[in-house]
This record gives sequence, structure tokens and C-alpha cells, in this order.
Amino acid sequence: MTTPLRLGIAGLGTVGTGVVKIVQHHAALLAARTGRQIVITAVSARSRAKHRGVRLADYAWEDDPVALATRADVDVFVELVGGDSGPALGATRAAIAAGKDVVTANKAMLAHHGQALAEAAEAAGRVIRFEAAVAGGIPVIKALTEGLAGNEMTRIMGVMNGTCNYILTRMESAGLTYDAVFQEAADLGYLEADPNLDVGGIDAGHKLALLAAIAFGTRVDFASVTLEGIQRITIDDIRQAADMGFRIKLLGVAQLTGRGLEQRMTPCLVPAASPLGQLEGGTNMVVLEGDSVGQTVLRGAGAGSGPTASAVMSDVIDIARGTRITTFGQPATSLTAATAAPSATAVPFYLRMTLQDKPGALAKIATVLGDNGISIDRMRQYDHPGPNAPVLIVTHKAMRDALDHAIAGMAGTGVLVGEPVALRIEEV
Amino acid sequence: MTTPLRLGIAGLGTVGTGVVKIVQHHAALLAARTGRQIVITAVSARSRAKHRGVRLADYAWEDDPVALATRADVDVFVELVGGDSGPALGATRAAIAAGKDVVTANKAMLAHHGQALAEAAEAAGRVIRFEAAVAGGIPVIKALTEGLAGNEMTRIMGVMNGTCNYILTRMESAGLTYDAVFQEAADLGYLEADPNLDVGGIDAGHKLALLAAIAFGTRVDFASVTLEGIQRITIDDIRQAADMGFRIKLLGVAQLTGRGLEQRMTPCLVPAASPLGQLEGGTNMVVLEGDSVGQTVLRGAGAGSGPTASAVMSDVIDIARGTRITTFGQPATSLTAATAAPSATAVPFYLRMTLQDKPGALAKIATVLGDNGISIDRMRQYDHPGPNAPVLIVTHKAMRDALDHAIAGMAGTGVLVGEPVALRIEEV
Repeated sequence: MTTPLRLGIAGLGTVGTGVVKIVQHHAALLAARTGRQIVITAVSARSRAKHRGVRLADYAWEDDPVALATRADVDVFVELVGGDSGPALGATRAAIAAGKDVVTANKAMLAHHGQALAEAAEAAGRVIRFEAAVAGGIPVIKALTEGLAGNEMTRIMGVMNGTCNYILTRMESAGLTYDAVFQEAADLGYLEADPNLDVGGIDAGHKLALLAAIAFGTRVDFASVTLEGIQRITIDDIRQAADMGFRIKLLGVAQLTGRGLEQRMTPCLVPAASPLGQLEGGTNMVVLEGDSVGQTVLRGAGAGSGPTASAVMSDVIDIARGTRITTFGQPATSLTAATAAPSATAVPFYLRMTLQDKPGALAKIATVLGDNGISIDRMRQYDHPGPNAPVLIVTHKAMRDALDHAIAGMAGTGVLVGEPVALRIEEV
Repeated sequence: MTTPLRLGIAGLGTVGTGVVKIVQHHAALLAARTGRQIVITAVSARSRAKHRGVRLADYAWEDDPVALATRADVDVFVELVGGDSGPALGATRAAIAAGKDVVTANKAMLAHHGQALAEAAEAAGRVIRFEAAVAGGIPVIKALTEGLAGNEMTRIMGVMNGTCNYILTRMESAGLTYDAVFQEAADLGYLEADPNLDVGGIDAGHKLALLAAIAFGTRVDFASVTLEGIQRITIDDIRQAADMGFRIKLLGVAQLTGRGLEQRMTPCLVPAASPLGQLEGGTNMVVLEGDSVGQTVLRGAGAGSGPTASAVMSDVIDIARGTRITTFGQPATSLTAATAAPSATAVPFYLRMTLQDKPGALAKIATVLGDNGISIDRMRQYDHPGPNAPVLIVTHKAMRDALDHAIAGMAGTGVLVGEPVALRIEEV
């Protein structure tokens, strides 16, 4: 047996304490599987006094994660602080500079600084691994970077924010409004400190950008992800979708075509009977499509102490076993800068809007759609008590840019109240 | 860039030619991802003359796989010959003795000789990897051995024989008899040379035994897998199951309990709406359950040239990158010999039998069940033209050994015609 692998863990929230528990409870199992002892030598968090339900007395304590990351008795810096910059970034940089390997669950940091961090780590002969950053316990980074590495990947898709999926499925099952379920999620502690990271699709967008970099050998380009949150989805949208045999999911899609790299994280209608449509609550699903393997689907817990700690430990175990994979599956300096491209696929759209209830209003909207080459599959005006009429339109297949052009044109009709909601209908 | 990694491929059937195609078509991609050229130096197959649709002229030809496996210009022996012993085993042993790493798709060989081969490889400092041996393109060996290695695994389940799943789903969708669909599958080339490997559950049982060894750190124990094929499933069974909201799947389950290691590969009723129940045709699904991660589900193509070659290449890429994992995820000498244990879970059973149509026949059967502590949830006697009455019984939860005891007892009643079919009803 070689020397122990020594971890320094920064961040002792739900994931950090989960990692401590696995290291403590499964010491023999980990040693059998890696041929080494895996030990924790030092930890760091904001509050030393906080009770966390795990024994920390045997580990050195550092108030400053940078001090932790650079300790001589730490081989692997486990970054569970979070945040796209600040202490997490500073400590990660310091760890690499000090010759440590890094394991992180921080999608925000990697989505913004992954390229620079990966280059620095690779120049120093160190690895940065981030299985826990995407889809919680599902070993999707490993599947994509290693398990499917013989494929030219053609498309990746995923429902990768458990909070959004919880909100959408709970609205449907309990018949509650978005605001009511949002408040519930907040009370249950499901939301990030900045809830917009969740419901605005940003967190899921970070994850998609990381997967796309691995899949297509392109530099992480979070800025080019088309992002749309779930905040404008109403219980009526969910019911209308259900009537048509669909459910609404915050769905990520990335593909590299002749036009460039398409990345979007937007609410979509997917068939209720499809695997994506059946996804309940905080469960995540990632669909990986490659030229040889076809479609591979992974489903599991997208968050939570145990699942995320399981993913962190998979990276730690890799390092203990001597497995050394570059951050994005090929040298960071070899990643190409792809051109961002809009979706190249025409799909039907679900279009909900409110019109002033006056003669000819609907005709004006239909005319604008027609002028933009968009034909209507079905249209429905709801019963309505007030002066404005809610209208639902399902289009035949259309390109998103044509639809956006049409929506811009609708503003000029003078009959539109507020902004339409337009959702892709995906036959996944 | 270090020296090229040189492959010697034995077996040029559908999988072997698929591997050749990936190596030829994705040379740049593979080099980018591994930092090395991956090249084929020599190949071997039964017929040199056969046209295979790939260019082989650049590679040395060996008629004898042992000669291929021991060539000085081969680093990795890719064993795609198949068969639990014979040339595959001889060449694999020779490769290890000659200091080669081995990549194989051969579940039969590993189910029977995996322990000895792994010990030999580890003593020689070589690896044997077998992603392609289980569930085709799904990277399940990697997920279990590496991605979930921080977990004590609690249970694994899977539908892992595409041919059986094709037969069962096709019987249902086309309303055809087992014999008719079996013939179809034979005509389509879906069946192994010995069809009993497929429909007898043996092939899937091999796969389950390999997964169990990794999951539970136990020696591969194929001999202890409770095996039951699909040959006795009738279209009536499938219809009766459908009426109750179930579908029949050849389902593998392995778990390590206080009683020992339970391994079974048997046709079961699973809810039609469950992910396993919805599995169509040749698709495979594996469910991995761990103490931290909870349930992780992987779905994908279980066979075919592209998917299986994708899995072979994942192992080749690992070796090219310097990743070296032991065959079963821990040293082979450290694997324990588990005691085989029957299922420790009481479940409802679907029980179909034929009775002589005479007064009191059904009462006698019911009495035998009652005497064995098995209560009846529902019972149905079909319309029948002939002298014998087909009877369907669904039991309340019962242990399998009690049911087996009851079935043995039924023979003594003198009213039973033939052997009952008993299928577990699994609430997966």
C-alpha cells in the first residue's frame, strides 16, 4: 500500500459533511478499492462553532480556504465553498500553484473560469475534476469524458436543475401557482441564496456549458448559452401542456452543427410519456448521443448530501488510483472556440399571450405569424372575466428566429398585452 | 505525444469491424483525447477472405489469436472472439503472460474464468477491462467501478439481454407466440449460435454475475445465479400481465444481505409505467443503488456494432490515457467468496398452471397454497375448449422458497397438468 491520499476540504455544508461521512464510514472500502488510505487532514468553513453532526476534531482547522489549499499535508484540495469567484476561485488558484490536485462541485466557477483554471492545472501537471458539479450523483462527467470517449458526440440534453423540476412538477401535482411553490421551495431550503441561479436557468446553464465543452472539444462558453428561466410559467401553461399530452421541463440542449455550437437552457414541452417527461421532483436526467453509441440516458439524484458527496468521492478515488484525466477530456489549450449558433431545428412552438379583447385582435396576431412564415396548428381563446383575452397558439414547425421576429412584430399591432410566452415543443 | 498505443484485434465480426471503423475514422479525435495515436497493428479472425467492409490491408494478419496476442508490436490484446473457453481463453492467457493489457467483450469467459484471469493479470501488472461485456454501449462497468466507487452498493438490477427483451416486447406488440417471434429473431440474426445463451437467461446471468462481483467485492459466482429463461412465457402471460398493468421482463437482481449474496435472472412482472416496464426492443437498462447516491439508472443500446465498439474503445482509451483499474475494482485476491442466498424479500407472484377440469381441482391447489402460508389475491379460470383448465393465480406477498414448496406439493394432488409457471411481481 502506498502513502495515504490526504484531503483538505473547504466548505462544510451539506456536501462537505457528506464527504466527511463517506471518508469516515467507508475507510476500509475505499482502501480496498484504491489501494490507499484516503484521509482528511484539514478542513475549512465559515463557522468553526457550527454543529454539523460529524466529528471534525481530528482534522486541522483553517479559517482561510487559501491557507487550507496550500498546506503541506494536503494532496487534494476539495473545493465545496461555491460561488463563481471569491474565496473558491482564490483558493483553487492557490491550490494549483501549490501543486495540489483539485476536486470541486463548483459549476459556476468552472463555467466562468474553467478554461484558465484547466490551463493552469495542466501546465502544473495537476488535475481539476468536477463530477459533483453536474447532475449530482449521476456519473455523467465520467460517462462523457471517458465512457463515451470513442464517440463523436452529436447532441447532449438534460434536465439538470432539481429545484426547477421540483417547482414545475409540484405546480402540476398540487395545482398551485408558481409563486406559491416558489415560496414552498424557499421554505424547504431548496433554493440557492440567489434564487435566480435556479429559476433563471443559470445554474443549469453552467452545467450545460461544461458538458458541451467536453462533448465537442470547445472552450466553455457559458455567455453564449440561450437562457430562459421558469418564472413566467403559469399553472395554466402546465394544464394546457398536459391537455396536449406534454409536460413542461427546463431542458438543456447542446449540439455542434455546421452553423456552430447551439446551447440553450429553456423551458420546453416534452411528451408526458417520454423519459424526460416522466421525471419527477429533484431527479436529474442527462441524454448523451454519440455517433457510435447512439443514445445513452442517465438518471439519478441531482442534488443532496449523499449523491453529491458520492460524486466528489468518485473524483477523489480516481486521483487515489492514479487516474489522471484532463478537466475537459483533452488538453485545455487544444479546445477550440466555437461560434455560437441559434437552433438549426424547426419545431412546433407553444405560444401564450394576452390580447386586448377587441374585434380583429386575433386576426392581427395571426397575420403577423403568417407574414413570418409561421402557420398555426391550433389556437384557443380562453374564457375570461376581464377586459383582456388569454390566447393559446400551437404553431406548426418553425425556426426560433422566425418566431422571435414574429413576436417582435406583434408589439406593433397594438393589441398585445405584456410579453408572449413561447416554448419549444420537443419530441425527445 | 508519447508512443502510439498498438492494438491487436482478435475477432472481426460486427463488434470487431466496429472497432476498426472507430480507430480509422476518429484517429484525430482519439489522439486529441488521449494524447497518443491509437493504431491497429494486427488482426485475427477465422476467415481472411471474408469481405467485412473495412480496410484491413495495413494490418498484419494472424490466423491464430494466440500468435496475435503475443506479437511484439501489440500493446493491447482486444479479444472479440467470444466463447467461455477455447481460443478466446487461450489467447487471453497468452496475452497476459506476454505482458499485454486485455480489452474484452466476453462475458462468458469472464463469468467462468474472470477470477483466475484477473489474478494473473494483476500479478503481471496488466489490466483486463470489459466495458463491452455488459449492456453494450452503456458505460455501466465504469459507472459502477469508478463513478459510484464511494458507495457501498446495496442492489443492482437490470434488463441486459436485448434479444429476450426484443422477443417479449415483440410478442406483445404483434400478438405473436413465443415460437413465432423466436423464429423471427433467429432470421434477423439476433440469437447467439446457442440460442439458449439468450433465451435461457445465461448471457444475462453472466453479465449480472460480473456486476455483482464489482458491486459487492465478491468473487464472480455465476454458478449461484438463479437462472430462468423466457421460453415458457406465453402470449397469454403477456396479456394477463398487461391487464393487471404489468409487463414481463427478463430482470436481473443482485444484492448482498445478511443472508448472503442473492443473484437471480428471471422473468418478472414489472409495472408497465415504470422505466423498466417501458423498455422496448433491444434497449438495456441497469439500475445501480448505493448507500450515498441512492438510485442511478442507465439506459442505452445493449448490443450492435457501434454501441459495443464504443464500449471497447472506452477501455482502449483508458489504457491509452494511463488509467489502470483492476478488473473488478479491487485486487482480485481481495474479493471474498460470498454465500449464495435465496431472495430475502417476499413479493406477490403470478402463477399460471393447467388443471384437469374436474370437481375440486381448484380447491386442492388452493389448499396446498394455504398449507404453505401463501394467500391468494386473485384467481381466474379461463374459458377453455379442451379437457384441461388454464388457471391464473396472483398471490399475496410470499417467499420464493415457500412457493417452491407449494408447487412441489401441487404435484401430489393429481390434478396438475404440466409444470406451473411462477413469476415474481416486482414493484421496481
